[in-house]
Amino acid sequence: MRPLSDQSPETLRASLAVLQERYAVLKGRGLKLDMTRGKPAPEQLDLSEGLLALPGNRDHFTEAGEDARNYGGIQGLAEVRRLFSGVLGAPPEQIAVGNNSSLALMHDCLVYALLKGVPGGAGPWSREGEIRFLCPVPGYDRHFALCETYGIIMERVPMTPDGPDMGAVEDRVRDPRVKGMWCVPQYSNPGGETYADDTVERLAGMRTGAPDFRLFWDNAYALHHLTEHRPVLRNVLEAAAAAGQPERPFVFASTSKVTLAGAGLAFFAASPANLRWYLANVGKRSIGPDKLNQLRHARFLAQEGALDRLMESHRRLLAPKFKAVTDTLERHLAGTGAARWTIPQGGYFILLEVPEGCASRVVELAAGCGLAMTPAGATHPYGRDPQDRTLRLAPSYPSLAEVEAAAEVIALCTLLAATEARIRQAR
Amino acid sequence: MRPLSDQSPETLRASLAVLQERYAVLKGRGLKLDMTRGKPAPEQLDLSEGLLALPGNRDHFTEAGEDARNYGGIQGLAEVRRLFSGVLGAPPEQIAVGNNSSLALMHDCLVYALLKGVPGGAGPWSREGEIRFLCPVPGYDRHFALCETYGIIMERVPMTPDGPDMGAVEDRVRDPRVKGMWCVPQYSNPGGETYADDTVERLAGMRTGAPDFRLFWDNAYALHHLTEHRPVLRNVLEAAAAAGQPERPFVFASTSKVTLAGAGLAFFAASPANLRWYLANVGKRSIGPDKLNQLRHARFLAQEGALDRLMESHRRLLAPKFKAVTDTLERHLAGTGAARWTIPQGGYFILLEVPEGCASRVVELAAGCGLAMTPAGATHPYGRDPQDRTLRLAPSYPSLAEVEAAAEVIALCTLLAATEARIRQAR
Repeated sequence: MRPLSDQSPETLRASLAVLQERYAVLKGRGLKLDMTRGKPAPEQLDLSEGLLALPGNRDHFTEAGEDARNYGGIQGLAEVRRLFSGVLGAPPEQIAVGNNSSLALMHDCLVYALLKGVPGGAGPWSREGEIRFLCPVPGYDRHFALCETYGIIMERVPMTPDGPDMGAVEDRVRDPRVKGMWCVPQYSNPGGETYADDTVERLAGMRTGAPDFRLFWDNAYALHHLTEHRPVLRNVLEAAAAAGQPERPFVFASTSKVTLAGAGLAFFAASPANLRWYLANVGKRSIGPDKLNQLRHARFLAQEGALDRLMESHRRLLAPKFKAVTDTLERHLAGTGAARWTIPQGGYFILLEVPEGCASRVVELAAGCGLAMTPAGATHPYGRDPQDRTLRLAPSYPSLAEVEAAAEVIALCTLLAATEARIRQAR
Repeated sequence: MRPLSDQSPETLRASLAVLQERYAVLKGRGLKLDMTRGKPAPEQLDLSEGLLALPGNRDHFTEAGEDARNYGGIQGLAEVRRLFSGVLGAPPEQIAVGNNSSLALMHDCLVYALLKGVPGGAGPWSREGEIRFLCPVPGYDRHFALCETYGIIMERVPMTPDGPDMGAVEDRVRDPRVKGMWCVPQYSNPGGETYADDTVERLAGMRTGAPDFRLFWDNAYALHHLTEHRPVLRNVLEAAAAAGQPERPFVFASTSKVTLAGAGLAFFAASPANLRWYLANVGKRSIGPDKLNQLRHARFLAQEGALDRLMESHRRLLAPKFKAVTDTLERHLAGTGAARWTIPQGGYFILLEVPEGCASRVVELAAGCGLAMTPAGATHPYGRDPQDRTLRLAPSYPSLAEVEAAAEVIALCTLLAATEARIRQAR
C-alpha cells in the first residue's frame, strides 16, 4: 500500500469513503470485545486447575513442620522462596512471599518509604517536601497511579530498545529529589523491551543525588516468553552489590500470570538490610501472609520442571493471539505509514504507535464498534500522552477468534483515524 | 487462705521457702509451654478442614457469574458480604472483603488517613503535625504498635466494665489533635468487657475537636462466646448515623478465629462515603483480593446456621481451657490478695492483675519454668505498664493438659512474686 503521505487529497477522500463504509459494516456486527487489560484467558487459568482442590485434606504442614493454617511465618514458606529464587535472582533468605498482588507489595514499600524512610535514608520521604520518581514512557498505568495518589511528581524518561535512555536517567537522578524509578526490566509493559546488560549495570551503579534512591524493579514477566528466544536479564541485585549499591533495588514478582491472576503469590526480594526493613514493617501490618496458598503453590509446582512446563503451556495459548494481531496489522497497515507496532518476544502487550494526535480517535472509533481498548494516554504519567500517539493492545483475554476480530477493528480504526488526520493536514 | 497483707514477716518468709521449693520442683519438670498469643489450637483449625480442598475442581464462578480466579472484584464477593452482614452490622453494599488479616486493613486505613486524609477531613493526617489516638488500657499490643510505628502519640484511657471511661474519653477528644481511638467493643482484648449501649452511643455521638475523628472499631470477637450468654452489642454504624456522625466508625472483623487464623478473610464496613474512600484507595494498591479464598469460605459456610455451629464447636474446645485457668487461679490464689482475674464470657484472653510491681517478675519466674507468657507491659501503649501489674493469659493454643500445667505455673509464680514483694514492703 502507498504511504498516506504520498496520496493526493482526492485519493485520500476516496479512501476515507471506503473506510467509512467498512467501518459501518463492522459497527453493524454488534461486537462486544475487550482488549483493555493484561488479563489471562480462562484457558490459561485452567492450566492451574489443580490448585483449586489443594492442599487437600490433612495436608497443612510446611517442610519446617509448621502449621500453615495458623498465624505467623511473616517471611513466607522456605520451600516457596526456594522455588522462586531463580526467578527473583536472590537467595531464599533474601525473599519474602506476600499475598496475591505484587502491586500491593510495591504500594506498601512506597508507603513505608513515605512514612518511615528506607535503609540509608534520612527519614520519611513524606517529610522531604517534593519528591520525584523517574518513569520510563511508555509504561504501566498502575505504577503511575501509585505515584499520583501519593503526590510523587513523575518525570518521564524515554524508552529505547535497550531499556530507559540512560543518558537522560543519569542526568535526572543527580537531582536529590529523585527518590526512585519504575522499571519493568524484561518484556517491559507495554513496549516489550528487555533491558540490556549495560542498562542494568548503569542503573545499578549510577551516581544519584538521593543517597536512598530505589529502583522499583517490577520483574512481572520474567517467565513470560512468546518465542523460543530466552533473554538473560542481568541480575540487578548482583549488579547493584558489585557496584557498591546493594540497597538500591527492590525486586518484585508474582505468579498472577503464572498460576491464578487473582489468587497467586507475590514476592519481594532485596538486600539483607532491605529485607529486614521490609519484614519489620510488614510485621506491623499483619501477623503473616496466607501460608495455605503458599503450600498450595508448593504442592502444585513441586515436580522438577513444573514451572517451565506451565509457562510453555501459557505460551502455546498466547503466541497465536499475538500473531493474529500483528499479522492483521501487517496485512492492513504495512506500507501505509499509519502505524508502527511491536512484535513482542514476551510479556502481555503489543505497543501500537499511530500518527500524532490519532490515539484517542482510534480508541473512540474502536469503542463505536464495540471494542474496549486501554484508554489513550494510559501508558503515560498522569494519563497524558502529549503526542496522543501511543496505544497498548492486550490480546491475552479474548478468544483467538475475538482477538482476530478485534485486530481487524483496530487496523481499520487506525487507518481511518490516520486518513482523517492526513486530510486535515492537507487542507 | 489468709491475705498476704495480714501475714507476719515470719509467716511470709516461711511461705516463701515453701513456694521456692515448689518452684524448684516445677522447674525440674522441664516444661515447654506457650501462652503468649491468642492463637487457635490445631483442633480448632481442624473444624475448618473442609476449606482445604475447596472450592474444588471446576468450581470457580461467583454467584454474579464472575471467574473468581481472575483479576478484579475489588469489593469482594456479594455472597460473602451477605454472609457476614450480620456480624458487621452493615448492609452488604457497605462492606469490603480483604485478604487474610483485619490488622492489615486497619493498617491500610491508617496509612490512607496519614497520606491522603479521610472523608470530611482537611487533608493528610501526616501534614497536621502531631496527632494522637486514644487507647483504652489494657488493650491490644498490635493496635498500639501501629500507632507507634507511624509516630501517632497514644493517650491512655481507663477501661471500665462498660467499656472505656467515657468521661475521660469525652474530655480528651475535645483536643483536635486526637484523630482516632482503638476499640475492641465485644469481649475486649484483654479484659473481656463488652461495651454497654450507652458507651457505644456516647462514642458515636460525642463532640470531637477533630472533624475527621475515627473510631477504629475492631470487632474481632463478635461471634466468640465462651458461655450461653449472648451479649447484643449496640450497632455502632447505626448509632453514629443516628447521631449525625455517619463517617465516624471504621468497622473491622475477620474469620481468623472463625475458620483459619492464617488463611481467613478480613472485612471492612463503614458508611457509604467511607466505603467509597476505602475502595478508591485499595483499588490503587491492588487489582483485587483473593476471591478464590472468598469462594472457598462461601461454599464452606453456605448451609443455614453453619457459622453458628462452627462457633459452638470452637466454644466447646475453648471453654474448658478457660475454666482450667480460672479454676486453678481460684484454687491457689483465692483469698491471698495476690491477684485478681477475669472470668471472661467470650474472646481469647484472661486478664490477670497482680500486685503493683510484680507483673514482670511473674513473667520472669514463669519463663524460668519453661512457660512463655505475653510480656508484661504488652497490654499498654509503648509496652509500658506504669504499675507493672497487668498480665494477659492466652489459653487457646496449648492442649487442655498443657493449659492446666501452665495455670499451675502462673498461680505459683504469682504467689511467689507477691510474697517476695510483700516481704520487701515489710522491711
